[in-house]
Amino acid sequence: MKKILVVNGPNLNRLGKREPDKYGRETLDEINEYLTGKAIAADCSLTFFQSNVEGELVTAIQDADGFDGIILNAGAYTHYSIALRDAIAAADVPAVEVHMSNIHAREDFRHVSVISSVCRGSIAGFGRESYLLALYSFLTPR
Amino acid sequence: MKKILVVNGPNLNRLGKREPDKYGRETLDEINEYLTGKAIAADCSLTFFQSNVEGELVTAIQDADGFDGIILNAGAYTHYSIALRDAIAAADVPAVEVHMSNIHAREDFRHVSVISSVCRGSIAGFGRESYLLALYSFLTPR
Amino acid sequence: MKKILVVNGPNLNRLGKREPDKYGRETLDEINEYLTGKAIAADCSLTFFQSNVEGELVTAIQDADGFDGIILNAGAYTHYSIALRDAIAAADVPAVEVHMSNIHAREDFRHVSVISSVCRGSIAGFGRESYLLALYSFLTPR
Amino acid sequence: MKKILVVNGPNLNRLGKREPDKYGRETLDEINEYLTGKAIAADCSLTFFQSNVEGELVTAIQDADGFDGIILNAGAYTHYSIALRDAIAAADVPAVEVHMSNIHAREDFRHVSVISSVCRGSIAGFGRESYLLALYSFLTPR
Amino acid sequence: MKKILVVNGPNLNRLGKREPDKYGRETLDEINEYLTGKAIAADCSLTFFQSNVEGELVTAIQDADGFDGIILNAGAYTHYSIALRDAIAAADVPAVEVHMSNIHAREDFRHVSVISSVCRGSIAGFGRESYLLALYSFLTPR
Amino acid sequence: MKKILVVNGPNLNRLGKREPDKYGRETLDEINEYLTGKAIAADCSLTFFQSNVEGELVTAIQDADGFDGIILNAGAYTHYSIALRDAIAAADVPAVEVHMSNIHAREDFRHVSVISSVCRGSIAGFGRESYLLALYSFLTPR
Amino acid sequence: MKKILVVNGPNLNRLGKREPDKYGRETLDEINEYLTGKAIAADCSLTFFQSNVEGELVTAIQDADGFDGIILNAGAYTHYSIALRDAIAAADVPAVEVHMSNIHAREDFRHVSVISSVCRGSIAGFGRESYLLALYSFLTPR
Amino acid sequence: MKKILVVNGPNLNRLGKREPDKYGRETLDEINEYLTGKAIAADCSLTFFQSNVEGELVTAIQDADGFDGIILNAGAYTHYSIALRDAIAAADVPAVEVHMSNIHAREDFRHVSVISSVCRGSIAGFGRESYLLALYSFLTPR
Amino acid sequence: MKKILVVNGPNLNRLGKREPDKYGRETLDEINEYLTGKAIAADCSLTFFQSNVEGELVTAIQDADGFDGIILNAGAYTHYSIALRDAIAAADVPAVEVHMSNIHAREDFRHVSVISSVCRGSIAGFGRESYLLALYSFLTPR
Amino acid sequence: MKKILVVNGPNLNRLGKREPDKYGRETLDEINEYLTGKAIAADCSLTFFQSNVEGELVTAIQDADGFDGIILNAGAYTHYSIALRDAIAAADVPAVEVHMSNIHAREDFRHVSVISSVCRGSIAGFGRESYLLALYSFLTPR
Amino acid sequence: MKKILVVNGPNLNRLGKREPDKYGRETLDEINEYLTGKAIAADCSLTFFQSNVEGELVTAIQDADGFDGIILNAGAYTHYSIALRDAIAAADVPAVEVHMSNIHAREDFRHVSVISSVCRGSIAGFGRESYLLALYSFLTPR
Amino acid sequence: MKKILVVNGPNLNRLGKREPDKYGRETLDEINEYLTGKAIAADCSLTFFQSNVEGELVTAIQDADGFDGIILNAGAYTHYSIALRDAIAAADVPAVEVHMSNIHAREDFRHVSVISSVCRGSIAGFGRESYLLALYSFLTPR
Repeated sequence: MKKILVVNGPNLNRLGKREPDKYGRETLDEINEYLTGKAIAADCSLTFFQSNVEGELVTAIQDADGFDGIILNAGAYTHYSIALRDAIAAADVPAVEVHMSNIHAREDFRHVSVISSVCRGSIAGFGRESYLLALYSFLTPR
Repeated sequence: MKKILVVNGPNLNRLGKREPDKYGRETLDEINEYLTGKAIAADCSLTFFQSNVEGELVTAIQDADGFDGIILNAGAYTHYSIALRDAIAAADVPAVEVHMSNIHAREDFRHVSVISSVCRGSIAGFGRESYLLALYSFLTPR
Repeated sequence: MKKILVVNGPNLNRLGKREPDKYGRETLDEINEYLTGKAIAADCSLTFFQSNVEGELVTAIQDADGFDGIILNAGAYTHYSIALRDAIAAADVPAVEVHMSNIHAREDFRHVSVISSVCRGSIAGFGRESYLLALYSFLTPR
Repeated sequence: MKKILVVNGPNLNRLGKREPDKYGRETLDEINEYLTGKAIAADCSLTFFQSNVEGELVTAIQDADGFDGIILNAGAYTHYSIALRDAIAAADVPAVEVHMSNIHAREDFRHVSVISSVCRGSIAGFGRESYLLALYSFLTPR
Repeated sequence: MKKILVVNGPNLNRLGKREPDKYGRETLDEINEYLTGKAIAADCSLTFFQSNVEGELVTAIQDADGFDGIILNAGAYTHYSIALRDAIAAADVPAVEVHMSNIHAREDFRHVSVISSVCRGSIAGFGRESYLLALYSFLTPR
Repeated sequence: MKKILVVNGPNLNRLGKREPDKYGRETLDEINEYLTGKAIAADCSLTFFQSNVEGELVTAIQDADGFDGIILNAGAYTHYSIALRDAIAAADVPAVEVHMSNIHAREDFRHVSVISSVCRGSIAGFGRESYLLALYSFLTPR
Repeated sequence: MKKILVVNGPNLNRLGKREPDKYGRETLDEINEYLTGKAIAADCSLTFFQSNVEGELVTAIQDADGFDGIILNAGAYTHYSIALRDAIAAADVPAVEVHMSNIHAREDFRHVSVISSVCRGSIAGFGRESYLLALYSFLTPR
Repeated sequence: MKKILVVNGPNLNRLGKREPDKYGRETLDEINEYLTGKAIAADCSLTFFQSNVEGELVTAIQDADGFDGIILNAGAYTHYSIALRDAIAAADVPAVEVHMSNIHAREDFRHVSVISSVCRGSIAGFGRESYLLALYSFLTPR
Repeated sequence: MKKILVVNGPNLNRLGKREPDKYGRETLDEINEYLTGKAIAADCSLTFFQSNVEGELVTAIQDADGFDGIILNAGAYTHYSIALRDAIAAADVPAVEVHMSNIHAREDFRHVSVISSVCRGSIAGFGRESYLLALYSFLTPR
Repeated sequence: MKKILVVNGPNLNRLGKREPDKYGRETLDEINEYLTGKAIAADCSLTFFQSNVEGELVTAIQDADGFDGIILNAGAYTHYSIALRDAIAAADVPAVEVHMSNIHAREDFRHVSVISSVCRGSIAGFGRESYLLALYSFLTPR
Repeated sequence: MKKILVVNGPNLNRLGKREPDKYGRETLDEINEYLTGKAIAADCSLTFFQSNVEGELVTAIQDADGFDGIILNAGAYTHYSIALRDAIAAADVPAVEVHMSNIHAREDFRHVSVISSVCRGSIAGFGRESYLLALYSFLTPR
Repeated sequence: MKKILVVNGPNLNRLGKREPDKYGRETLDEINEYLTGKAIAADCSLTFFQSNVEGELVTAIQDADGFDGIILNAGAYTHYSIALRDAIAAADVPAVEVHMSNIHAREDFRHVSVISSVCRGSIAGFGRESYLLALYSFLTPR
């Protein structure tokens, strides 16, 4: 049974509450619930962590040692947190970068990801399904 | 039953034959066969098109009208084909950008995608599974 | 009687069919018909060529020797086709660059034209009339 | 009967007197006369304004309210006058940008136009005929 | 009793007449009247100057010697008039830069101010209240 | 009675203690006291929050729902915290950006603000009065 | 007897009155007087023109036809007035660019001169002597 | 006996016919004949391929498997065809980049070659002899 | 007896555990122990602080008032934490920047340090000895 | 009697021998002779030094202590020799930068001078008279 | 009998002794010997010069007047020596730029050559054969 | 007994004589004497070399074969001498880069070091102690 850590960064705790026309009306809790259902069906367990604090996200990645994979939506930190990048690069657990929106269709400064190159892969643009596709990526043989 | 068009760009016809340590030993035909199996299981049909010629890829996108979705690995054209971008933007069919390798972990010029912003989403880094995840993205409700 | 070659690049074959609010509902055939009417009135003949393939556009320009002028809407190739630029520069026939939309009021990457400097002049922003003004430019004494 | 305002910017009062090999031997008055003849034939009236002073050009654009269109050769101000740009954007009268020479075939700093994006369209490279084509652009249905 | 000079640059004479959805329906005269009322209440006198001509604005700043402060909305010249900058730097009277709109939320070229660094401070985004806040800034002890 | 949240970012807790010739000798507590006095006079209540931790500032902005406005001096985070920007953009409460010093007259990297464009307006250069002017901006009708 | 036109741009009318530690205490009139004395000694006549208005400087250059040379201190316009550049390039009279201060030892934006390349030569850094050296440059055989 | 593939890109089919003062009067056929003569003398066989279509050049490189080397004059595609670059990188046959003119002495955009780094070496500036030197490079021991 | 504060930033708590071929097998505790031994020998006391949280590092620098010097390995924050820079600049205690690896021989984004210019000096590339050399730098007369 | 050191950099020893249409037919010796004549007339002595070696020019500047001024034509080193810049900055003798040609009217890379900001002033574009004007600059009171 | 000068720049005197896996084990003397043999066979004489000093290379180029051609491997000076560039441009003898390694496949800063545009042609990537091909380039009719 | 070569670049021979407020009053000889004393105490011998000539520094590095380490203060060449970089990279002796001043707190062009990435480490900002710390770096086990 695979164990996956789902890490969400700044402002994602406000999902469903802020800018619903951009991010939908579903809260992070509801998304996590949805993903848990899918994970159970796939004989897989999910652990969730969210923080607005960059350093706490770094620590969460550092402490991921027992997991089989990390699903990481780093939010705004995607674009400048080299600290997060270093944590991912140093982790023994592979990470997959996800974004709910298509960051390439938004402001220019969101086209740069400082963490992509140290993740196994990246998935963007599919709303809550971005997480689900990331989950599936850990379930296929490689 | 959903109909999906899988479009592959330049040099992808050489998969499995070139640089196997970078792209694996599987040929494009074998990948397509694998995807077809998965698609049938999901009650979905796949049509495949490959070309090295930018304009033929443009035409393929233009002619995708009957399909429910396009899975597009534009290869090197990803990085400069505004013609392809325009074709995708004009199409009534949503497209998902895929890459087998993590293009963000490769040369600088591969970090730029001129087509991302007109695709529904993008998936990179999972080898042949990138195509499969793109396929799944069309099967989830939205 | 002057002979003018009208060359249209990628995606222009979809005029009237794609994004009508941006490009209008007239098809390329209808525009060509409209231009032909105007040309006959001005005692001038028009020949039309369209392709999505960059190299075929290059060849069309190379083969323009018998013509008195080229009206060229290079579409997306405007922004990167140095091959097209070289073909125009080498042609003995003067070319006029046209765009239906005002490319300077669109995305940044459309503000760059690699072919402008080797054309006699450029005309942008007047819809199908851009072609007509280009036609008139060949009819005035110089 | 359409009323068109023709606005000429800095140094265009020296046409025909300066660098004749680059701009021809015709003076601005002669060009205006030529255009007036063409305009009368098209049942259209032209009003001419020239100034070397950026702010006076701004004022001329602001005062264009009764006209059906503005033909604007902003000369060197094309490349940096955001004040002129703002005046055009705020005007209720559509403006067409013209240049006698092909500015894209000249020095790099002449390739940038800060006014293009707020004009209806732009025409460059046809000598005095650039003005005439701009005039015609106001006479075609739109 | 403090004497403040209010200087408005290009196109601000068109306030209320142009693009009302962007700048409101109030004219510059009405704003000046509003500010005068507020100034009188604060035992302060206001003098107003507006010009579309960069050099006249420079001269106005040069001639501000008797005033206690300058409230300057340089309009488009904000972004490129080094001449204005030099005039402010040389003046013995402190200047406060104001903008009615939030220039940082508009086009990229409006994010650059060549005059900010020689002004005492800057205020942007509060409509006509930007002027009022600037006025208040001269009334607080410093 | 309006309720305003005053948020101060990194190093502002050291005001009055560090570099007094640059920032004055007044402590943050003294400034807050001064502002409270002014707010009471204007029938308005102020709540203060300061943190050196980016994520805690994000959370403070997220939790501002009951307030009528946010006065935000983001300190150094002004220049790179996209997380803070996202929090402001998602908040239903309008924010005004303030800086005590004129950031445009300091080092180049302080000329960039990643939060300006999502704030209602910005005020810089007036020392402690920058906060006061921001307070006044919430009290004027809009 | 040679006739030289001395053209001074924006803010130079304030010489001696503004920032004396940077530009000295001598007024423009005093400098002109000093130069006139030197010119008479060299059997040469000087005509002086100063304006803060870019377009008036353009006109002054255009009207320089009878002169043997132009000594031009364009002040801040040095750095962006392409209109002035065009006027100089079109003039039949050679111009020499002068600056009293060493513009290369000042702010970065003063290192760029858009007029240098169309002047015969440039002289900077010698205070009022910059004008005198420019005068001498017209008196040596060439 | 060594087998070498000579691949020529866009517009090279017009050699001798276009801009003879820049490229000489010799046609591509005549150059090929000349090279064939030299190759026979060196006990080596040459196969020639030319196309204006980027994708056909890609395919030609892909199909070069039986050859001992590729001499590639990619013409304008040199400067932007990452597709061609990928084909060369994937080929098991070494390629040598040639240019007849000295591309470094021409326009700025011709100074960039996206294919140089995946070729064994590059030779530019020797007219038809560039091909011959490339041929010799395959004949020396390595 | 000198008192030195040793501050370590994000991911340095994982030294010896992550990427041993890049950073060695020694843990941060072991390095600190080694340094303590050296410090005692030099009649000097060391205090250690590590955090992954940028704001906590800022606070640690703010609270360093009693110390004679700060040895700071800011880890990834070196490259973007202007907040940390401001804290160092405001501190009365001199800081020395250290890096175990030669950051100039690594990725491009690690070549930029936003804190160097406010530190007394910087030392990089000597593994744990970088700390020791920094310690010695505080012991030499200055 | 003033003593001036005239320092000439790389390739200036070839004056009159190379590219006479660009630099004239006069040799460096002839220019030096001409300058010596002028210097004697002005009761001033000149010492000449030329080298192609950057470090020897540095040493020459270092050894200039007895002189009243340095006239420096650094040739190509003008554009990149920070070593020369440091030597000038450290010298107690003021230096004037000269160029025979107008470097601003030549290639882009010649528009940058790394030494201008540490010289008293600069003179360019007057052929051998550039040296003479520099000489005169040392003779006027300052 | 043709006379060719072979000029080698900095560090090439260490060929065969440094980094043999990058540059091979052959010394510069051995390469020169090899080339001499080839030259004799082609009825051609070679003269060799090497220096680490930029200015001495400049002088060598200046003194090449009797030769029929220069083969120049400028080593690191390739990338910044404008002095060398000027010497080549001024020489009456044509120069061919050579590099043993493929500089385009190495660090970014080696992709720029400031001397290419003034050389007849350039050859890179063929080890010692680069010199030989350059030699041959002088022997073919032109 | 370790043998260390201390190499000093351009203008360092003027230490103590130039700009004493920036670099102190100690001469290079005095610094060398100080270091020699320290070296003897550490059972280590120092050899000193200084030159203003880039190529002589290159040669010195090439000839360092018998030494255990190089302490290199390349002065201004730090910022552009790729020749020096290549010499260091090719040497079998490790080099440590030192600077007396904190180059990151000086002009922008001094923030770039082209030699850092090929040195073992770098030390800047400690005056003459920078050399001493470099010396110590060779004495610690590694």
